[in-house]
Amino acid sequence: MSNGDTADDIMGATYCALCAHGYADLTMQDIADESDKSKAALHYHYDSKHELLCAFLEYLYDGFVERTDPDDGTPRERLLGLIDAVLDKPDDEDEEFGTAILEIRAQAPYEPGFRERLTRFDDYLIEQLTAILEDGIEDGSFDPELDPEDTAQFIVTVLTGAATERVTTGRPVACTKGMLTEYVETHLLAGQREVEA
Amino acid sequence: MSNGDTADDIMGATYCALCAHGYADLTMQDIADESDKSKAALHYHYDSKHELLCAFLEYLYDGFVERTDPDDGTPRERLLGLIDAVLDKPDDEDEEFGTAILEIRAQAPYEPGFRERLTRFDDYLIEQLTAILEDGIEDGSFDPELDPEDTAQFIVTVLTGAATERVTTGRPVACTKGMLTEYVETHLLAGQREVEA
Repeated sequence: MSNGDTADDIMGATYCALCAHGYADLTMQDIADESDKSKAALHYHYDSKHELLCAFLEYLYDGFVERTDPDDGTPRERLLGLIDAVLDKPDDEDEEFGTAILEIRAQAPYEPGFRERLTRFDDYLIEQLTAILEDGIEDGSFDPELDPEDTAQFIVTVLTGAATERVTTGRPVACTKGMLTEYVETHLLAGQREVEA
Repeated sequence: MSNGDTADDIMGATYCALCAHGYADLTMQDIADESDKSKAALHYHYDSKHELLCAFLEYLYDGFVERTDPDDGTPRERLLGLIDAVLDKPDDEDEEFGTAILEIRAQAPYEPGFRERLTRFDDYLIEQLTAILEDGIEDGSFDPELDPEDTAQFIVTVLTGAATERVTTGRPVACTKGMLTEYVETHLLAGQREVEA
């Protein structure tokens, strides 16, 4: 078995253990129990639970980038496609996983390395959204008055809020998706706003 | 000392203990240490840490309602005032408190009673925002085409996202506030959108 396979196995086991136990009570033994490895073998690859979870966040990031890489299409299509890709969980993702991720997010101020790794998700999204908005301004389909980076940050804030609400209040994301689509259609596309005198 | 004073003391001690220890590691002893009461005295008032924290969420809710009760003014002023009241932390609120609240939010699926109490905050905000938007439509200052409840939910999602980001990535809320203000000014006020043919 190559190192890559071992790492993938451990990441898969971490995913299952997080869904089963949540983050707060997670132990290296829980992760070992979900894999075909011993706890000692896990410690051979990762010094601590903290180090393993930092690696897990990087593994998630790679998957996130792959899953949300904007398709071809018009800037409008790419923007709405990216929003959908973030709001729609992968079909095989457990409900419990979003909860575990919010637990990890809440640990960002306490666990060195978590904040930087979590910020990468937002930075990646802001960069992708900004590029799409700039393309749309350039080809004339988006309002030239909009600030691409501020708008991208705003959309990311909405996406973060929807993910938090899914865990906290159990509110489905359908309303957020509808409102964000309307925001794009009526606010960001060119010719939707009256020119102020 | 009346029961009300005792309850207020315990709530104040819970606030301090959450800021000092976070939620995950919080014990009844930590809360007792922040008050002039013994752990046994705390247990006299609250059977368990869980019960005490449910009471604490209700205490926070009362403070939140008081702090965000919309002022008089035009619907536009009341809407922006409410957004500011939610985004601006009270001057005396510790940075650590937002983190403890996000930890508690992440426990909503595990701790019976947390979700209902957390949902009350959102329901209150949605109700207030919906009423303001309806008033604005009625007096002609807001776009009659907007859906008050969907719009209110969308604004709450943005506010939730900003609170999560403050903890997770440390991003300040200034950008969110600017974009939400712009959203209100250019999207919700009457006569800003071109009528679609």
